[in-house]
Amino acid sequence: MDLFIAGFGVIGQGVVEVIQQKGEMLSKAFGQRLRVVGVCDSSSYETSKRGLDPSTLIRRKLSEGKVGTKPFDGDAERMLGSVDYDTLIEVTPTNIQNGEPGVANMLTALNRGKHVVTSNKGPLALRFKELSRAAEKNGVQLRFEATVGGATPIINLSRELLRGEKILSIRGILNGTCNFILNRMKEEGLPFAQALREAQDMGIAERDPSYDIDGVDSACKAAILANAIFHLDRTYSDVKRTGIRGVTEEAVSLASEEKKVIRLIGEISSKRLEVAPRLVPIGHPLSIGGTRNIVQIHTDLAGEITVAGRGAGKFETASAILSDLVALLKDNQK
Amino acid sequence: MDLFIAGFGVIGQGVVEVIQQKGEMLSKAFGQRLRVVGVCDSSSYETSKRGLDPSTLIRRKLSEGKVGTKPFDGDAERMLGSVDYDTLIEVTPTNIQNGEPGVANMLTALNRGKHVVTSNKGPLALRFKELSRAAEKNGVQLRFEATVGGATPIINLSRELLRGEKILSIRGILNGTCNFILNRMKEEGLPFAQALREAQDMGIAERDPSYDIDGVDSACKAAILANAIFHLDRTYSDVKRTGIRGVTEEAVSLASEEKKVIRLIGEISSKRLEVAPRLVPIGHPLSIGGTRNIVQIHTDLAGEITVAGRGAGKFETASAILSDLVALLKDNQK
Repeated sequence: MDLFIAGFGVIGQGVVEVIQQKGEMLSKAFGQRLRVVGVCDSSSYETSKRGLDPSTLIRRKLSEGKVGTKPFDGDAERMLGSVDYDTLIEVTPTNIQNGEPGVANMLTALNRGKHVVTSNKGPLALRFKELSRAAEKNGVQLRFEATVGGATPIINLSRELLRGEKILSIRGILNGTCNFILNRMKEEGLPFAQALREAQDMGIAERDPSYDIDGVDSACKAAILANAIFHLDRTYSDVKRTGIRGVTEEAVSLASEEKKVIRLIGEISSKRLEVAPRLVPIGHPLSIGGTRNIVQIHTDLAGEITVAGRGAGKFETASAILSDLVALLKDNQK
Repeated sequence: MDLFIAGFGVIGQGVVEVIQQKGEMLSKAFGQRLRVVGVCDSSSYETSKRGLDPSTLIRRKLSEGKVGTKPFDGDAERMLGSVDYDTLIEVTPTNIQNGEPGVANMLTALNRGKHVVTSNKGPLALRFKELSRAAEKNGVQLRFEATVGGATPIINLSRELLRGEKILSIRGILNGTCNFILNRMKEEGLPFAQALREAQDMGIAERDPSYDIDGVDSACKAAILANAIFHLDRTYSDVKRTGIRGVTEEAVSLASEEKKVIRLIGEISSKRLEVAPRLVPIGHPLSIGGTRNIVQIHTDLAGEITVAGRGAGKFETASAILSDLVALLKDNQK
């Protein structure tokens, strides 16, 4: 299977490293080689029918600041048309204003009959229906395990392993940064501002933290789950959203007295789409600390199934992308 | 897909009800009907090429105490040869002395080229290699999601969704009864004997509780995971095993002072196979209360993935069996 990788930041580099590391195992298991035939970042691209060498790509990115030798002028159609490939790995940065350049890259690939595997939340939180229709019309797959919960296999678990179940609702912690802050407030009795500063110093929160703490990231993921699992047509702005700025020391301490913790919970069902701070009893799966993401999937037969994992990180995200690639390899085998 | 259901206790009845309830959805999704063409319990059997009516089977079992009109003399070969089917659903009671009648039923079906889906721990904790070799030799599948963790999709998650990962170790709570007892000891400051009695009164623990509290059930599941995921050849007696009878009120309360709880943890890797009480920090995923089963799967890329769900129950177990059936239906489609 020939791959074009659009985006060569931390995630794109992680994907290339993982493909290099796992290539032999996968080609043994599935009788197909994974080969990177194209790659681009925001200013350059590189293609080779015979396959690009991962180490060269990473070395060039590190030394020259760009992955390719050819300048990229922003024309996705032309660039993605310059080499043949089977699957586009779309890992450009998330843009929640208009989803670009992700949307253009994905539509170009899907409309040419190429599978798309992505970690890019923006396009799926904004234009899910259009993208999934393009995939369906062209008989290819659009896979996006990495968009929700990092390494946590929420989407493939729900859509594949639980395919015989009726999924009634999903509730969970979809943002590790908020969970870290709320947990530190509780554990150390810190005020919000101080817990946030600590998270920023540790590189867990961004300098501009609003994407996380105002619940935007969680809302994107909630919208994607609503679309992917409940077959709705929602964007992230359809999500009723309250962040964690208003969570006070006093509220955290009152909750503690009742053996509860405050967690930023996303709630997704065919009737409800909301992200807000909630009280969770200590000992309940959603009372988990740290930066993990966790969801509870409520179904008609299994009752509820909880799945948790690391919500972000180079190899964690590459892991989710790899699981989608493995599913494509498996389907190809038949 | 034609099914023979061996065993018609709570699980067998649950499976038949679920097939009745989900039949139409599945045949729409996969273009194949699930049809029950044979069923047996310990004293009777019934077959029909054209399919048996689930309601009639359940009604007869309830009113007459047996599922079939024909007496079953224990000759599995003959009974399982009396009708053609594609998949044996083996849900007879677990026997950890010699695995029978499960082993005989499974080998008969596998050697005739039939898939086997089972919830029966005994055969897989005692004779895994022989059974999986029979499946391989005959080009059929042996699926056993329901043997570990009830509705919790531990095996299919590890073997399918995480197929690209190297799984380094698995740790978890594999028995809900022990977890309930340990959690009540902590929450209410109860001595072991009293928490056990409470669990017995609630129907969570058996009259003879040793299968649960001495760690035998957990050890069976640990052995199955060792075989299925780490490709070892272990039986449950290879598992180093300490139960929870020796866990005192004092130990639980000391742990509490250190913000820890005691949990019966199974640890499985290529180098380690053990079930024993362990200290777990409060807030850690494995500090979970209630009767859930939970495991953490440690991998090279994802770090760790935690999955939890109900460990037992009629529909919970049927749910795991259904997920295996769905996987077979999906493979059949190609």
